[in-house]
Amino acid sequence: MADDHILLAHGSGGLLGHRLVRDLFAAAFDNPILAPLDDAAVLAEWGIDQAGPLRLAFTTDSYVVRPLTFPGGDIGRLALCGTVNDLAMVGAEPLYVSAAFIIEEGFALAELRRYVDSMRAAAEEAGVRIVAGDTKVVERGGADGLFINTAGVGLVPADVHISGSGAREGDVILLSGAVGDHGMAVMSQREGLQFDAPILSDCAPLNGMVRALLGAVPGAVHSLRDPTRGGLASTLCELAETSALSFEVEEAAIPVHGAVRGASELLGLDPLFVANEGKLVAIVRSQAAGEALEALRGHPYGREATQIGRVTGEHPGRVILRTVYGAARILQMPAGELLPRIC
Amino acid sequence: MADDHILLAHGSGGLLGHRLVRDLFAAAFDNPILAPLDDAAVLAEWGIDQAGPLRLAFTTDSYVVRPLTFPGGDIGRLALCGTVNDLAMVGAEPLYVSAAFIIEEGFALAELRRYVDSMRAAAEEAGVRIVAGDTKVVERGGADGLFINTAGVGLVPADVHISGSGAREGDVILLSGAVGDHGMAVMSQREGLQFDAPILSDCAPLNGMVRALLGAVPGAVHSLRDPTRGGLASTLCELAETSALSFEVEEAAIPVHGAVRGASELLGLDPLFVANEGKLVAIVRSQAAGEALEALRGHPYGREATQIGRVTGEHPGRVILRTVYGAARILQMPAGELLPRIC
Repeated sequence: MADDHILLAHGSGGLLGHRLVRDLFAAAFDNPILAPLDDAAVLAEWGIDQAGPLRLAFTTDSYVVRPLTFPGGDIGRLALCGTVNDLAMVGAEPLYVSAAFIIEEGFALAELRRYVDSMRAAAEEAGVRIVAGDTKVVERGGADGLFINTAGVGLVPADVHISGSGAREGDVILLSGAVGDHGMAVMSQREGLQFDAPILSDCAPLNGMVRALLGAVPGAVHSLRDPTRGGLASTLCELAETSALSFEVEEAAIPVHGAVRGASELLGLDPLFVANEGKLVAIVRSQAAGEALEALRGHPYGREATQIGRVTGEHPGRVILRTVYGAARILQMPAGELLPRIC
Repeated sequence: MADDHILLAHGSGGLLGHRLVRDLFAAAFDNPILAPLDDAAVLAEWGIDQAGPLRLAFTTDSYVVRPLTFPGGDIGRLALCGTVNDLAMVGAEPLYVSAAFIIEEGFALAELRRYVDSMRAAAEEAGVRIVAGDTKVVERGGADGLFINTAGVGLVPADVHISGSGAREGDVILLSGAVGDHGMAVMSQREGLQFDAPILSDCAPLNGMVRALLGAVPGAVHSLRDPTRGGLASTLCELAETSALSFEVEEAAIPVHGAVRGASELLGLDPLFVANEGKLVAIVRSQAAGEALEALRGHPYGREATQIGRVTGEHPGRVILRTVYGAARILQMPAGELLPRIC
């Protein structure tokens, strides 16, 4: 396979995927809104409330996860939560979601209904409405069962200013819980691995937790991102690069569930590079760290929230990981695809 | 294949597709915004201008057309225009579009770049910006080359009130040009048919023409719809059903290009049931018919615009076609899939 064809790695959260987005899509669709490449686009002023102008947030993601049902979730819940979370990560209140289905001929209606019900339940939990949709059917062999695309719109309150380049020197790096659950749940299912305690995907809508966080420490949250494809490592690398600051992270501080650690060793994977679907990284003004952690821990999806590092100016654009053995290493974005079709 | 599996026909603009949407998706995602099943959802008030409150329109569509390039267009232009048109059909000014790609491993980057460039050119023509995106790659055999999803948001001016149920007794039915071009262009390419004059897809962004129409006859346009999957016949059946009025249409008044008529006969298809991607049906107050036609004909995409019928109260929910032989027949929505993967 030469450089001039799409590789599985182009679909990863790693380097090749980033280059494809930067060199092909962002270059062609060049405009100041797309340029920041945040989880969601934040659009010009769309209204006004007591505090000032509101901005519209808009995002999309397609879901091609396999298998369609995995421990802790399914493609329906995943597709709804992913888009809700992308909106929440720019500080928006998610409001409306679209759902577009590409279905392979012969797919069982009862199974489709399960995923639709799962989307509805997740939408209810997140407090969003599914208001637009589309269905396409392709012949047998033309697609692998079912793909779902969701797009979403939300409103960013006037006093919220969060972006991938928002980190400042001295900020703390918070993580809302253990990493690797989603990716390892899907991989374990796919590989037929059995554990005493099954690994469950963390797939969840995070807008409620973000609302609590922003309410607890108004103005103190500079960046938010959910470490999906490419895992925590890719997210930290992205945020360090876009803010041109150094992220210093303690490996020992990063929570990883025992079963995930075990499965990772079995499969030769590093949980820092494995996808999450219900976690967030928050870059927060250091003075607000305590209150921010309290707000995260007060929410069911943030009980294991913890501080994992600090932002400094020492190695601009780099993530320095202090390992459990005391060594420091530069964390790099993965070049290739570790786990295809995880979302 | 039993009733409990997805058929190709579920993806058509016909009866099975409508039932799937109504009984599965609309039932599960039940809410007052989704309920009208218009081309785009029109959301609560999102702002205000001189004339009053603005409403947000939001829509999505996936594109699985095969072949990816066809005479007169390609999947990139189609994906951009389709979503722009869905917004225009609820009277919205389209503003922002998202683009999500599902790509099969091994797809040529140069070909992908062509479709991306084609989307960009269509976005420029339509005056919209592509502000959000996503890329997923599936392994060889997991998808058929390339699927593109677009979603779009736009604003409906305060004084525009257009919906699928807006038709009133006495209104005229206008059609912006000849039908069947897109579907027959794709089918001819697929079947390897050769004609002296090749059939070109009519794939085009219609928002400029809609702007001209609404400006020429403010308040007089009650319904707009672009007759895509299922063709003109399905669109007329939908509009008659949702408005609970009778649509009386003259077959002889419906323009069909000669090559399309020839290809249709060859393939045993009725052009009234074949998809268009650059035409619209407008239901307009009869007093404004002349000015509305003039506005449509004044636009490059509406030169062949013409009146094809009238709305009456005689056979609620029915479309009565007066054939070229003088007979009257009830036009029915096709039950099955005539042309798979046409969009």
